[in-house]
Amino acid sequence: MASWYIESGSESDVVFSSRVRLARNLKEFPFPSRMSKEQSSKVLDRVKEAMTNSSVWANANFKYLGMKEMSPIDKYTLMEKHIISPNIIESKLDAGVLVGCDEKVSIMINEEDHLRIQCMSEGLQLEKTFENCVNIDKLLNETIEYAFDKKLGYLTSCPTNLGTGIRFSIMLHLPALTMTGYMNGVLDACSKIGIAVRGLYGENTEASGNMYQISNQVTLGPREEEIMGAVKGISSRIIEQERALRRELYQKEPNKLADRIYRALGILESARIISNDESMKLLSDVRLGVEMGIIKDIALETINNIMLNIQPASLQKLVVKDMGPNERDVERANFVRKLIGNKL
Amino acid sequence: MASWYIESGSESDVVFSSRVRLARNLKEFPFPSRMSKEQSSKVLDRVKEAMTNSSVWANANFKYLGMKEMSPIDKYTLMEKHIISPNIIESKLDAGVLVGCDEKVSIMINEEDHLRIQCMSEGLQLEKTFENCVNIDKLLNETIEYAFDKKLGYLTSCPTNLGTGIRFSIMLHLPALTMTGYMNGVLDACSKIGIAVRGLYGENTEASGNMYQISNQVTLGPREEEIMGAVKGISSRIIEQERALRRELYQKEPNKLADRIYRALGILESARIISNDESMKLLSDVRLGVEMGIIKDIALETINNIMLNIQPASLQKLVVKDMGPNERDVERANFVRKLIGNKL
Repeated sequence: MASWYIESGSESDVVFSSRVRLARNLKEFPFPSRMSKEQSSKVLDRVKEAMTNSSVWANANFKYLGMKEMSPIDKYTLMEKHIISPNIIESKLDAGVLVGCDEKVSIMINEEDHLRIQCMSEGLQLEKTFENCVNIDKLLNETIEYAFDKKLGYLTSCPTNLGTGIRFSIMLHLPALTMTGYMNGVLDACSKIGIAVRGLYGENTEASGNMYQISNQVTLGPREEEIMGAVKGISSRIIEQERALRRELYQKEPNKLADRIYRALGILESARIISNDESMKLLSDVRLGVEMGIIKDIALETINNIMLNIQPASLQKLVVKDMGPNERDVERANFVRKLIGNKL
Repeated sequence: MASWYIESGSESDVVFSSRVRLARNLKEFPFPSRMSKEQSSKVLDRVKEAMTNSSVWANANFKYLGMKEMSPIDKYTLMEKHIISPNIIESKLDAGVLVGCDEKVSIMINEEDHLRIQCMSEGLQLEKTFENCVNIDKLLNETIEYAFDKKLGYLTSCPTNLGTGIRFSIMLHLPALTMTGYMNGVLDACSKIGIAVRGLYGENTEASGNMYQISNQVTLGPREEEIMGAVKGISSRIIEQERALRRELYQKEPNKLADRIYRALGILESARIISNDESMKLLSDVRLGVEMGIIKDIALETINNIMLNIQPASLQKLVVKDMGPNERDVERANFVRKLIGNKL
């Protein structure tokens, strides 16, 4: 079954994915940071029950994955798929995640807040993704009473999420902005208007594969639609800049650009040992080639599939056998060669 | 017709080619450095006549190429094929070269000495190459009187060639010695026993493509056969060291070696812009792969052919149109892709 992180969607020449996340807490319980293990267990049960009893959502084949029951490899694989956060893996409480069968919807329970409802989509589709999120939010709210204040809105563990508790994120592939050095200007401009820019794996992670996550920092004050508008607005300006720079790179020195793209492809098709970091850099170049129509026989979905599966835990899960880092670099190279060789 | 620089011969896993060169001067004329242009013209005529009148050699289809008549591109192309030296291109005298149709034999006239008789062969075959050289030497000596002293032997322009006037050279491909750093020890050892080590294009050139030319420095004293024995002896020890190191590299880290070799091949198959220097480095890695049987679908002859034709003048001659260095790097990449793609 196709998942959000394999498909490619609208504006897919620059936009990798859209994500909406809501932070919610149950009124009767203290925030996770001040909660006993027993209380966390009760929160878990309450949320699972709310979902299971819903006839609508039972059809969606949600499955519950408890952190205690999962192997480290399975947990890190979910993290690499952006379905759970690093935080919840570290949690000492009873914590878990409800995952929709296509992995586009997930509900983390007892992470920083009692509930983190997250919807993801391929390409640029913030409205639809937001709608999905709102539907789940409403459904849970039918049986669960949220911590809510008339003045402050939804109460959250960290004040930065107070109010709407919402984060809209758009993941963009920005190789041209990065290689020309203009990305620094984008980062400055974003920070001045309350827009956060992060790497592929959330806060404090480098922009691996030239993937940047654009999201709102402000949650209190404006309405959800206004916040969405701001994130969409800045994103579309960044997208246009990226496209203009790509055209310029191509027009100025077509051979230089083609050289970079085809060398990256050549190395990915040939290497016998390759690190995650180098793979991501080269895949970014190949992705650019596909996005610009320079490479025609490789699908974006293939690149998405490789990008995900070469992450350490996902690769480990794929190969099954236990591996040290050196062996992993060999298995990664084998996997990349196999997948990138399966041309359209 | 196959030429020495395209074919591959005995011990071809390490030995690229064998070369024997004789320095000779005509008794009646001063050395080229002290010769008038008129005198040089007379030397030219005398040598050409000696060759043309020989019934044996007329059959070998020798052709005469005068330096004055040739375009710079043609001259540099001959230099890149090791048929003439950089010196003769710069000469202000009437100078030229007699070339056998398979380009294995060439006689430079009015280079540093009046005559430089050179025979080349693919692989390791110093005896046969020496025999070819001796035959031409004898033939010329039938009608031409050499400058010869009973005590000193053949008189030459530079005292380093005095006596036998002979240089035996073996061109070796030594990537394992180079990448492990042991080549420095080889260089030291050679210099101590009067063996010169040069790069692909003679004195003061770097070992482009990890090709090293092993030759005698001593010409006065020992007999030709003794000199040949010394060059062969040291060469076979270097060849054995290179082979042992290759086996060791392969046994210790087969993936690392394969990674290096296949990445080189991947880049050569993909690049759209490539310098001569980078091409030679990568071709050396691919050559190693072929020599070790790791790459099975590319012939050594293909690599030889590429190595020769990507040199600046040869490439210019091949592409025909006038090119700047940037355009040359693009055309080089096109040429390499085309040739290396024509697998066995």
